[in-house]
Amino acid sequence: MARAGTTATAHGQFSTPAFMSVGTSGAVKAMTAEDLEQSGVEIMLANTYHLYLRPGEKLIKAKGGLAKFTGWNKPTLTDSGGFQIFSMRDLSKIDDEGATFRSHHDGSLHRLFPEKVMEIQRDIGADIIMSFDQCVGYPALREQAAEGARRTFDWARKGLIHFKQLEEAMPSYMALFGIVQGSTYTDLRRISAEQIVGLGFPGYALGGLAVGESKAEMEDMLAFTIQFLPANKPRYLMGVGYPEDILMAVSYGVDMFDCVLPTRNARTGMVFTSEGPLVFRNAGYMDDDRPLDPNCGCRVCQRYSRAYIRHLYNQKEITALVLASFHSSYFYQDLMRKIRNSIENNVFNTFRKEFLNKYSRGEKMADRE
Amino acid sequence: MARAGTTATAHGQFSTPAFMSVGTSGAVKAMTAEDLEQSGVEIMLANTYHLYLRPGEKLIKAKGGLAKFTGWNKPTLTDSGGFQIFSMRDLSKIDDEGATFRSHHDGSLHRLFPEKVMEIQRDIGADIIMSFDQCVGYPALREQAAEGARRTFDWARKGLIHFKQLEEAMPSYMALFGIVQGSTYTDLRRISAEQIVGLGFPGYALGGLAVGESKAEMEDMLAFTIQFLPANKPRYLMGVGYPEDILMAVSYGVDMFDCVLPTRNARTGMVFTSEGPLVFRNAGYMDDDRPLDPNCGCRVCQRYSRAYIRHLYNQKEITALVLASFHSSYFYQDLMRKIRNSIENNVFNTFRKEFLNKYSRGEKMADRE
Repeated sequence: MARAGTTATAHGQFSTPAFMSVGTSGAVKAMTAEDLEQSGVEIMLANTYHLYLRPGEKLIKAKGGLAKFTGWNKPTLTDSGGFQIFSMRDLSKIDDEGATFRSHHDGSLHRLFPEKVMEIQRDIGADIIMSFDQCVGYPALREQAAEGARRTFDWARKGLIHFKQLEEAMPSYMALFGIVQGSTYTDLRRISAEQIVGLGFPGYALGGLAVGESKAEMEDMLAFTIQFLPANKPRYLMGVGYPEDILMAVSYGVDMFDCVLPTRNARTGMVFTSEGPLVFRNAGYMDDDRPLDPNCGCRVCQRYSRAYIRHLYNQKEITALVLASFHSSYFYQDLMRKIRNSIENNVFNTFRKEFLNKYSRGEKMADRE
Repeated sequence: MARAGTTATAHGQFSTPAFMSVGTSGAVKAMTAEDLEQSGVEIMLANTYHLYLRPGEKLIKAKGGLAKFTGWNKPTLTDSGGFQIFSMRDLSKIDDEGATFRSHHDGSLHRLFPEKVMEIQRDIGADIIMSFDQCVGYPALREQAAEGARRTFDWARKGLIHFKQLEEAMPSYMALFGIVQGSTYTDLRRISAEQIVGLGFPGYALGGLAVGESKAEMEDMLAFTIQFLPANKPRYLMGVGYPEDILMAVSYGVDMFDCVLPTRNARTGMVFTSEGPLVFRNAGYMDDDRPLDPNCGCRVCQRYSRAYIRHLYNQKEITALVLASFHSSYFYQDLMRKIRNSIENNVFNTFRKEFLNKYSRGEKMADRE
């Protein structure tokens, strides 16, 4: 069911399956737009919650929208803020109409609801924008999961109506995607998928996964739910994930991914390599002449040794974070390129097996350190 | 008296007057080696004190020396550690034979003396290494300044003898420079210069300036002392400085400079521009579409607005530090290129006047904010 293609936007096209780099506040942490390009990134995700609070959607609109404001000038996507409200739930309160929350900056009170989220995202101006949804944690009681799915549908409907009105008044280049929720309950997932698909979006996301459930549960939910998503529309698995998760999800026909893992882990001393995760900050690499990944073609791996990057990391040098983030970003994009090539050549399953065989051997080595 | 030229090293040549980027622990903060190259840096300085403590000179030696270990692979210079011992004087105790100090990492006790400093720097393996000197603060009592200059001479002599023995046993590509001290006392400066020059080094540095004295005092000391330094050898003004200081010093025939200012200030929200210092973190730039420096050709100024970089800085995004550091590094290298061109075309004084006219107008504007 794996599939490869390209998606066109007003800011250029991106190839799928795509891994979107997460530029929370309009920049991927420790990376420049040049770094994104050079590491092969084709589409950047930014967080509506963060941009709404700082610098504010009106400023971004005045600056020509997200792509122009950030100097990235290529395809972008914004999430809806639903996930951030879920993940900062100590600061927020959700009701049927929307969410009230306090800013993590200054404690100021804010209210988000479906129509407002459309207006904010229209101002930010990403190529792809997302419906306002309610994500529930794992594990979730059935009632909670049902309530989240119900609100997600209600908010998607309200948001879509408002988005269409906004588009009629002032047409844009933006595409609004729907999000399916339902936690780990197959019947809820099915209802949510059928409801959201019934509204008619140009693309669909699977939300509420990668929130603590096991890999087996994630796969079960994905395998079950994706059958209700139309094959002729992009499918986006939100917040995923590890290389093995991406390979699994691609095998079911997922087209888009996003995750902070490559850059967040780089900043805590771990990079992804063809031989598995490498905790490069470890003392065992003090004397290691090899690049982060001996099989990697990125400019960091052409120039710097583990010994050097480890030394910089231990001296708290920003440069270490820059180098490690670049490598892991490249590694993810290189993986996506290889996935797309393997699909085009009808050898995806072989590629997946070979990749994981090498990758998980390295993982075991990392565990032993 | 301004002069331009090139200096050859085993790792390539660099043009003078040169501004050396400071890569304390083997990397310029928030910059990669590619960033250094792209911003026009030709020679990187690293700190012996820091590298001796972490990762240790033996590791760097085993990795082929500083240029290779850091991936920079171009000319390098190491200071001697004398300035760090001065600047961390709460952790150190200096006597006639050397300095005992505690590591700022773990409090461990260390002893540096002239011969040891030569061995450490030979292991680190920069193209230019510096004599172990004693820097005194400003203002300094005459007795302190005299003692510092006396020790600096004694240590330079001992270091040079040991360096020659080491070179005889195992010839290298390294050049050892002498350092003149003497604080703000012209007679002491003269004695120090004559003593150090009497030892016969391939290059001479002026130490103990830019430690708190006024710009007028710095100029007076430089103008007075430089006449005792041979014209046919490189002259290095350590720890300087602001663009106006560099222009002043070049006018007296200084060939080499180093300073943390461009990158350190970038990390606190200030960059250097053709119109003077710009405190880009200020709220006044929230809405500013212009690049950091509208007259700059660097890739940061071609792509990003003040509004964007200010936003990232205020969100504590590492990317802001990366972008600002790159710009200021480029600005300094561009200034040095223009200085060299103006000298070659016999228009240095005109260039200096025009540069400062534009630069100090901007400075006043920055003050008004």
